[in-house]
Amino acid sequence: MVKDIQEQVSVQSEQASLIEAYKKVRHFSEAICEPLVTEDYVIQSMPDVSPTKWHLAHTTWFFETFLLAPNMPDYTSPHPQYAYLFNSYYNSIGQRHCRPKRGLISRPTVEETYAYRKYVDHHVIIMLEEASEQKLAALKPVVTLGLQHEQQHQELMVTDIKHVLSCNPLHPAYIAERPADPGQLPPLEWLRYAEGIYWIGFDGEGFSYDNESPRHREFLHPFELASRLITNGEYQRFIEDGGYQNPLLWLSDGWRTVQEQEWEAPLYWEKQDGRWLMMTLSGLREVKPDEPVCHVSYYEAEAYARWAQARLATEAEWEVASRGVPMRGNFVDYGLYHPAPLITAPPQGQPAQMYGDVWEWTQSAYLPYPGYHPAPGAIGEYNGKFMCNQFVLRGGSCATSEAHIRPTYRNFFPPDARWQFTGIRLAREV
Amino acid sequence: MVKDIQEQVSVQSEQASLIEAYKKVRHFSEAICEPLVTEDYVIQSMPDVSPTKWHLAHTTWFFETFLLAPNMPDYTSPHPQYAYLFNSYYNSIGQRHCRPKRGLISRPTVEETYAYRKYVDHHVIIMLEEASEQKLAALKPVVTLGLQHEQQHQELMVTDIKHVLSCNPLHPAYIAERPADPGQLPPLEWLRYAEGIYWIGFDGEGFSYDNESPRHREFLHPFELASRLITNGEYQRFIEDGGYQNPLLWLSDGWRTVQEQEWEAPLYWEKQDGRWLMMTLSGLREVKPDEPVCHVSYYEAEAYARWAQARLATEAEWEVASRGVPMRGNFVDYGLYHPAPLITAPPQGQPAQMYGDVWEWTQSAYLPYPGYHPAPGAIGEYNGKFMCNQFVLRGGSCATSEAHIRPTYRNFFPPDARWQFTGIRLAREV
Amino acid sequence: MVKDIQEQVSVQSEQASLIEAYKKVRHFSEAICEPLVTEDYVIQSMPDVSPTKWHLAHTTWFFETFLLAPNMPDYTSPHPQYAYLFNSYYNSIGQRHCRPKRGLISRPTVEETYAYRKYVDHHVIIMLEEASEQKLAALKPVVTLGLQHEQQHQELMVTDIKHVLSCNPLHPAYIAERPADPGQLPPLEWLRYAEGIYWIGFDGEGFSYDNESPRHREFLHPFELASRLITNGEYQRFIEDGGYQNPLLWLSDGWRTVQEQEWEAPLYWEKQDGRWLMMTLSGLREVKPDEPVCHVSYYEAEAYARWAQARLATEAEWEVASRGVPMRGNFVDYGLYHPAPLITAPPQGQPAQMYGDVWEWTQSAYLPYPGYHPAPGAIGEYNGKFMCNQFVLRGGSCATSEAHIRPTYRNFFPPDARWQFTGIRLAREV
Amino acid sequence: MVKDIQEQVSVQSEQASLIEAYKKVRHFSEAICEPLVTEDYVIQSMPDVSPTKWHLAHTTWFFETFLLAPNMPDYTSPHPQYAYLFNSYYNSIGQRHCRPKRGLISRPTVEETYAYRKYVDHHVIIMLEEASEQKLAALKPVVTLGLQHEQQHQELMVTDIKHVLSCNPLHPAYIAERPADPGQLPPLEWLRYAEGIYWIGFDGEGFSYDNESPRHREFLHPFELASRLITNGEYQRFIEDGGYQNPLLWLSDGWRTVQEQEWEAPLYWEKQDGRWLMMTLSGLREVKPDEPVCHVSYYEAEAYARWAQARLATEAEWEVASRGVPMRGNFVDYGLYHPAPLITAPPQGQPAQMYGDVWEWTQSAYLPYPGYHPAPGAIGEYNGKFMCNQFVLRGGSCATSEAHIRPTYRNFFPPDARWQFTGIRLAREV
Repeated sequence: MVKDIQEQVSVQSEQASLIEAYKKVRHFSEAICEPLVTEDYVIQSMPDVSPTKWHLAHTTWFFETFLLAPNMPDYTSPHPQYAYLFNSYYNSIGQRHCRPKRGLISRPTVEETYAYRKYVDHHVIIMLEEASEQKLAALKPVVTLGLQHEQQHQELMVTDIKHVLSCNPLHPAYIAERPADPGQLPPLEWLRYAEGIYWIGFDGEGFSYDNESPRHREFLHPFELASRLITNGEYQRFIEDGGYQNPLLWLSDGWRTVQEQEWEAPLYWEKQDGRWLMMTLSGLREVKPDEPVCHVSYYEAEAYARWAQARLATEAEWEVASRGVPMRGNFVDYGLYHPAPLITAPPQGQPAQMYGDVWEWTQSAYLPYPGYHPAPGAIGEYNGKFMCNQFVLRGGSCATSEAHIRPTYRNFFPPDARWQFTGIRLAREV
Repeated sequence: MVKDIQEQVSVQSEQASLIEAYKKVRHFSEAICEPLVTEDYVIQSMPDVSPTKWHLAHTTWFFETFLLAPNMPDYTSPHPQYAYLFNSYYNSIGQRHCRPKRGLISRPTVEETYAYRKYVDHHVIIMLEEASEQKLAALKPVVTLGLQHEQQHQELMVTDIKHVLSCNPLHPAYIAERPADPGQLPPLEWLRYAEGIYWIGFDGEGFSYDNESPRHREFLHPFELASRLITNGEYQRFIEDGGYQNPLLWLSDGWRTVQEQEWEAPLYWEKQDGRWLMMTLSGLREVKPDEPVCHVSYYEAEAYARWAQARLATEAEWEVASRGVPMRGNFVDYGLYHPAPLITAPPQGQPAQMYGDVWEWTQSAYLPYPGYHPAPGAIGEYNGKFMCNQFVLRGGSCATSEAHIRPTYRNFFPPDARWQFTGIRLAREV
Repeated sequence: MVKDIQEQVSVQSEQASLIEAYKKVRHFSEAICEPLVTEDYVIQSMPDVSPTKWHLAHTTWFFETFLLAPNMPDYTSPHPQYAYLFNSYYNSIGQRHCRPKRGLISRPTVEETYAYRKYVDHHVIIMLEEASEQKLAALKPVVTLGLQHEQQHQELMVTDIKHVLSCNPLHPAYIAERPADPGQLPPLEWLRYAEGIYWIGFDGEGFSYDNESPRHREFLHPFELASRLITNGEYQRFIEDGGYQNPLLWLSDGWRTVQEQEWEAPLYWEKQDGRWLMMTLSGLREVKPDEPVCHVSYYEAEAYARWAQARLATEAEWEVASRGVPMRGNFVDYGLYHPAPLITAPPQGQPAQMYGDVWEWTQSAYLPYPGYHPAPGAIGEYNGKFMCNQFVLRGGSCATSEAHIRPTYRNFFPPDARWQFTGIRLAREV
Repeated sequence: MVKDIQEQVSVQSEQASLIEAYKKVRHFSEAICEPLVTEDYVIQSMPDVSPTKWHLAHTTWFFETFLLAPNMPDYTSPHPQYAYLFNSYYNSIGQRHCRPKRGLISRPTVEETYAYRKYVDHHVIIMLEEASEQKLAALKPVVTLGLQHEQQHQELMVTDIKHVLSCNPLHPAYIAERPADPGQLPPLEWLRYAEGIYWIGFDGEGFSYDNESPRHREFLHPFELASRLITNGEYQRFIEDGGYQNPLLWLSDGWRTVQEQEWEAPLYWEKQDGRWLMMTLSGLREVKPDEPVCHVSYYEAEAYARWAQARLATEAEWEVASRGVPMRGNFVDYGLYHPAPLITAPPQGQPAQMYGDVWEWTQSAYLPYPGYHPAPGAIGEYNGKFMCNQFVLRGGSCATSEAHIRPTYRNFFPPDARWQFTGIRLAREV
């Protein structure tokens, strides 16, 4: 686990565990690709999606640019143009290939991309193996950031592959579906939290993004949080009640989006002969009522909440409610690649499904915490510059690595984004 | 003054003052139009702008729809299609004419529009004059809301007329320029405010919008606020320092907008022979360095603040700082129609220019206060449904009516909007 | 009549008749505007449409630029910016105001525009009155071109006003409807024309456009032409037969346009309660079956012809068939402003409705005649540069001046244009 | 050769030669792909381009749909969705996958696509081998059309691959460049042709498209045709003379395109350090002055002609001039994949480079010949429905199969198309 590398151990084991973490995370990117054929790697099905091949190369470029180039004087890249092709959005690093054109690049091939990975991995591992204690201390934050970055791209690879396959009328499957565990959906209950000044944000040891800092105080009024996620069955009642036809349920921008995009259900749902089907990573199949609803935008989450006479939680409320809840759940490590139905009631007073399954939209706009300052240098472009027109999501999804998530982790997407594994948990006033 | 009508007085004078307030506000809409020729009323120079004629009719439709129709059984509109033409965005009220097409409607003519106003005014005044005490109590909130609504449109009329005239290569002037008052710009100083739990939001008597409620508590960390607005001269140094060419100063969405729109200065600025000119409501003339910078977007305000190693205030910080500051300033009532330079230092410890001149961008996304619920009915579409992708502005501008503003007043616009009188005040951490 | 001015007469009467022609044509532009209110003059309802005010000024600018400026040394324009505002597309004359923004210009006002006309007319008439015989000979072609140009804009004024009024849900009428003449629609018959080499193009005396020259030979195969125009009633059967739903009837570009624009009838038709209505210059009223179908694109004309197992004529065929047909018809001079039903059979062997009513789409792309060379100078931009992506129409319409049309006259519009008075005459192989 | 199959021979050899022609053409599609890697097959670099994989499948679908399905009762497609995925534009055949989304389909894979080809080839060959004489006579026109169709797609494959590779900043090469043959560019001379009535269109034996019929008479005025194509060197003088900056040289639509697309040279040219380079199928290299200019639009060809005080030929003129010229040239069979410089003067009185190298833009809009009727059924959608907004090109290119071209062959593209191998030959009046 990446977290392990952050514990205080002897230098030797620190080095060993850093190398092990590196290998493990890097390997997982390739493991995700095992079910793919070469053609799948190339496609960019919409501007938000990147080709799998690009993800594999870009995460490699990250180590090349921020780790190898500054620290290994005689390092040379396999191709002088890779820096141009695989920069994502770091304006301070130089020109970059236009994002919506990532799907037009057939070369480097998939094979050459893997060779690029191997080449960079080889140099990184040598560098780490040969690093002095002092050097290692300097390199470790960059390695760790690169691994965190790669884990984020691993989640994007999963969601992007799903989108690419969904565009194909042949409905190809990425993996076989696993039979559902037996059990019964517990009823939705409301858990109460008291008013007060709470500390919000990261202050543990180990890695965190700059946007989780500084830890600061926030006053919360009393509130209630739903004990579990909203399910497909519950969301279907919203659809059947005319939710997508009633402008009074929607934010103004949301209603315009509903009409322009002709939304009438979550992404990947389609009606055939009066029955709702959904595209999953195991192909097209019926909508199962007890699974958490997924692939909804902020607009849909917010409209659903209004329809249900509730609201979404703020991110501070979510963070307060997460305290004491074990960080377990249906993560990508579990290999399901799909949200799972809740089949047992959570412990008394604790919310279920806080981690994994689906990212939970909060009603908090993505903004800087009081006293926030971006990290210096190119890495400072990582988070701060997106603090506008996006909403915070919490808790990770079935495409998130368990080692990547934290209670204070702030994910963010624009309110119309639907291709991530995003779902709904309700809150309300007391 | 509208505020006067909200005081407790005898029924008779309550009625008289409500009628007087009605006449006064309604009259001011027409006074704004005095410098116009008929052709000016018709034009919609961009989708955000409405023709002056439309504003005059729409504010009238508001009284017809929400005041006359429900309360005067035999009332009939002068034209059955006006309800369709002059509804702005009230989905619950029925179909409406497509917003970007408001500039395609030559009829009703300007003269017919004034006749429509007269017709509705006549009926409103009769209704108010004949109302029983009980009836009056029921009507007063609707009248008041209609007047507040009209005051908002008065501000839009001013900004829209400015935009329409600015599209004309002849640079027509709306009013003659008034000679500047003598004085000297005081230096920018920093005022300190202590941490604590503060009450935020409206709780006085009289009118307020639903988005200012409920009054609630918020914890603030200590902060400093600039003693005055940023000036054209200061902003020009940002331009000269390459502010519009440096992506690291901008939010990601902001930088994309700068490039797509080819921004290189505030709206209405243009460079001629190496000299900055600006279009004003008194025509095209040079940029004056001591005037508050105006017609900047949130993106520009935020980038300027980063360049100046500061930030924008939150709306709660602004509200706390506004306490004890007299609600005076360069409002539309003063007739300048342009922000004025500060020429005397403010009283010790008090920020200057908090009211009037320019709306001040805050770093707060426009979101519901804790416990917020929209008002029931069509009037509930007024504020709540816009709580997404916008930022809060505070303090009013040189196009705002003095009677319209409050310390708790929350204006809101998308971060790329520039045609309002919007400017910059800095804040920073302690 | 303009044509009169082209006859050989004594110098004195030549001068007098040129001045008379000038006054007559210039006056008619203003006569067209009599039913308008000021607001109507300002609106540009789509990029193809120009505000009436602009037409009035642009035709005046034409005389100012091509007649007064080069020939009257001390002439000065009333405003230095008019040349920029009222140039349409003459790249050689200098910069010009962006076409789609013509509707954003409230000043000069309508009144100022009329003053501009008066000012230019005053100077033109003085110049003509004082011109020597030799000078007059030099000026006459420019005056004549300017008048022809103005007549074209008069037709555009009529069609543009119709479009502007049609955008208004109030359906305002431009003129009262005139009661229909009694009579009975004669059946459609086929007139036969022999194969041979024909002379095509202009070679008479008097004015013609450069695109009608040079007169040249063309070989035609034998063909048949319909004796009259297609009517609304006939076109309605095409609609009812699913014409707008059957891709096999359409050109590929046409079918895409049908789907993108959601066409299901000619422009200005709308179905209310199962009945077809149409917007006319006399307001909204039912579709009359015997009137020529109007406001159809080339795509629709061509698809209708295919459905009717016929085709459109080539422009050479049309020109051959027009020989010997008197140049009479329902022109704008008649004051109907709408195509009229045919109520008497044409003389044996002659096609009816060849002139006036509606422009007849031909299947000829608008291309240069063999040996064509554009006129030198700015006037050469008049026709030649549009010889691409347009189709030729023949015969004039109910919005064309009788004095403006000729058998060899080539009008041209892109195949998707519908706001002109355009209709259908069929042809077929023998 | 495909043409061989059209000769009168005994049934047996007819059958054998049809099968041989089938195998030869089908094989060539795959030969074109030999230099590609799997990733290259997938990409659609603009809406006009189709992925190579799609071309391979679509040409196969054509045989499946028009040959196998109607004539082999128990034939089943390998996948029920292929008919949907690989229909191009045959509305009469059913729904089809949206053209601009062809690049989103990773499956069927390249391997599966080849299997699909093999499967269909197997069935076609069995069918042809087992066909009776009578059956063969019925099948032959469909087979022939399918092969002609595939040859057209072979040309598109070459041009589309070039476009795909050109989008890659790595500038990958498709084949190695062949050394140029020695020789000297002969001067451009003018060949004269007499006026008269000429027969135009196809009337030989063997295959032709319906748009080449019926053979018909056309009157031509005397004209002159250039003895060879315009070269890069000549075109460069047009560029250096400000050709792309002078609106008076351009058609109106052309000038708008120049400005919107920011054209300043032919497609694939780029200036580096003051030197013109061009992307070729052998990678990026310098522009060679004696090669025929290529990848110009109709707009550019027409503007160049105007600048050179000449014009383009009409398609009838080209056809008349082609008589007696041997149908030899630099076709795709020659393997150069690039236009070649002329190195020897043509025989006296004959134009050189009439076939192969580059398609020659004519000034003829693509329209039906007199008496034209589309072929019945889906195959009738092949040509007729595109007779609008396109211009005719003649003579074939370095990407055309020698067996595919004829003197009467009419190719057509919209006037802004540049990714085909298109060039310029001048004509002029006598």
